[in-house]
Amino acid sequence: MGLAGLRIVLVEPAGPINVGSIARVMKNFGFNHLVLVNPQCDPLSPEALQMAVHAKDVLESAVSVATVPEALQGCTRAIATTARVRNWDSPLENPRTALPWLLEKPEQPAALIFGREDRGLSNEELNYAQRFIRIPTSSSYPSLNLATAVGICCYELAQTDAEKKDAETMRHGDAQKENVPASPCPRVLVSDNEPAPLDILEEYYQHLESLLLKIGYLYPHTAASRMEKFRQLYNRTQLQTKEVGMLRGILRQVEWALENRNNREGF
Amino acid sequence: MGLAGLRIVLVEPAGPINVGSIARVMKNFGFNHLVLVNPQCDPLSPEALQMAVHAKDVLESAVSVATVPEALQGCTRAIATTARVRNWDSPLENPRTALPWLLEKPEQPAALIFGREDRGLSNEELNYAQRFIRIPTSSSYPSLNLATAVGICCYELAQTDAEKKDAETMRHGDAQKENVPASPCPRVLVSDNEPAPLDILEEYYQHLESLLLKIGYLYPHTAASRMEKFRQLYNRTQLQTKEVGMLRGILRQVEWALENRNNREGF
Repeated sequence: MGLAGLRIVLVEPAGPINVGSIARVMKNFGFNHLVLVNPQCDPLSPEALQMAVHAKDVLESAVSVATVPEALQGCTRAIATTARVRNWDSPLENPRTALPWLLEKPEQPAALIFGREDRGLSNEELNYAQRFIRIPTSSSYPSLNLATAVGICCYELAQTDAEKKDAETMRHGDAQKENVPASPCPRVLVSDNEPAPLDILEEYYQHLESLLLKIGYLYPHTAASRMEKFRQLYNRTQLQTKEVGMLRGILRQVEWALENRNNREGF
Repeated sequence: MGLAGLRIVLVEPAGPINVGSIARVMKNFGFNHLVLVNPQCDPLSPEALQMAVHAKDVLESAVSVATVPEALQGCTRAIATTARVRNWDSPLENPRTALPWLLEKPEQPAALIFGREDRGLSNEELNYAQRFIRIPTSSSYPSLNLATAVGICCYELAQTDAEKKDAETMRHGDAQKENVPASPCPRVLVSDNEPAPLDILEEYYQHLESLLLKIGYLYPHTAASRMEKFRQLYNRTQLQTKEVGMLRGILRQVEWALENRNNREGF
């Protein structure tokens, strides 16, 4: 089920701009199951639809219910979000620590619950969840916009999901290794974009040194120590083969300009 | 300087709702330095102020400039955000991997650059940055709202900052246990070895371009795209101030050799 099955539950949302923005960011990160508890605005109002842009389908398929327990029907795991720290004994966890738990049983429905823009969730509503998260914010202005909070949580969940899939692919890849030739490179690179072989680099350094001696930038007795600095600089950047080609092109063109100095004007 | 010193740079933002939301989320996560490049809307319009809620001070102290280089003046590190993957050779990194780099030198100004709502940053604008991030999104609707993207990046940076502070507190505690003052800085760096400010880099690129045009390596109609490759190469390597000095020394020496071509022998 994964992200697509995870319910994003909004309790009494009042701002259509927020609801529309939330639909958009849900779709951006692969979510599509929006549940509204007693919404205080029309999720299909022009403002909501405008903010949703290409996520109107998320708004159109949103489910409205009367209470939090109805929104959680069938779920085995629920996390509630809160900004409050008073009159609340349960630990408030960091999203990065707690949210991955929602994805641990992908075959079972799970929910992430957000409260009202102005006063969040009541203690009674919080208590329908098993864990509680608070996005850490600055004490000078701690209150996040609702859509921002949903966006950050969707982003965190999508990161967790991607890491899980990467880990699975790697495990799967390991199993396949016995019969199937390994993929040449995990990153998509064409050959010219690959790091240059060291002998190509060495030819460039030799060429650079000989030109710098010729034009009087280097002196024979200090050339080696100066060239060390250039080697460090270019080695650090991991030059690609085509970049070495470009740099040698400059050297050749300088040589050409110097050799043709008597035949040209304008320098 | 930390989060408060980090510049959030918006290039030609057009939506006052976005700009206001961005001011709010910046303040939520401890940022206050907003720079607008040629803004296409009034950052103090009623809609922007309404979305900012208690972050009007961030909008009021926002700086408007005409170009990206002006926005980056004095910065030594800049990361640009992009959604595009076409016609772009440099790697697009995950925010979680790349953003902590902006906080590594808290005493030096750094910037995080976001493009236009509808078409992001041009390649020329991207190339003022040294690293590039893309927030991973669903292929079914990859385009994030601008304020959502800024919010996620501010959240990531604040998480990194909090983790750093936690680690420092722990180290400090350990050091005190033994009655030994903590080492002030693990790496010894003198000023010349530090990353070159971006305006010094820009002067080098201008100098390189003008010389390459003069010697016929570049042609006016293709200079910009060719120079992009060199910018990517040198930005990737994080040139130190003294290295830029060495590279400019080569350019000056080549110019000298060309100018004195009639008075010298041996080329």
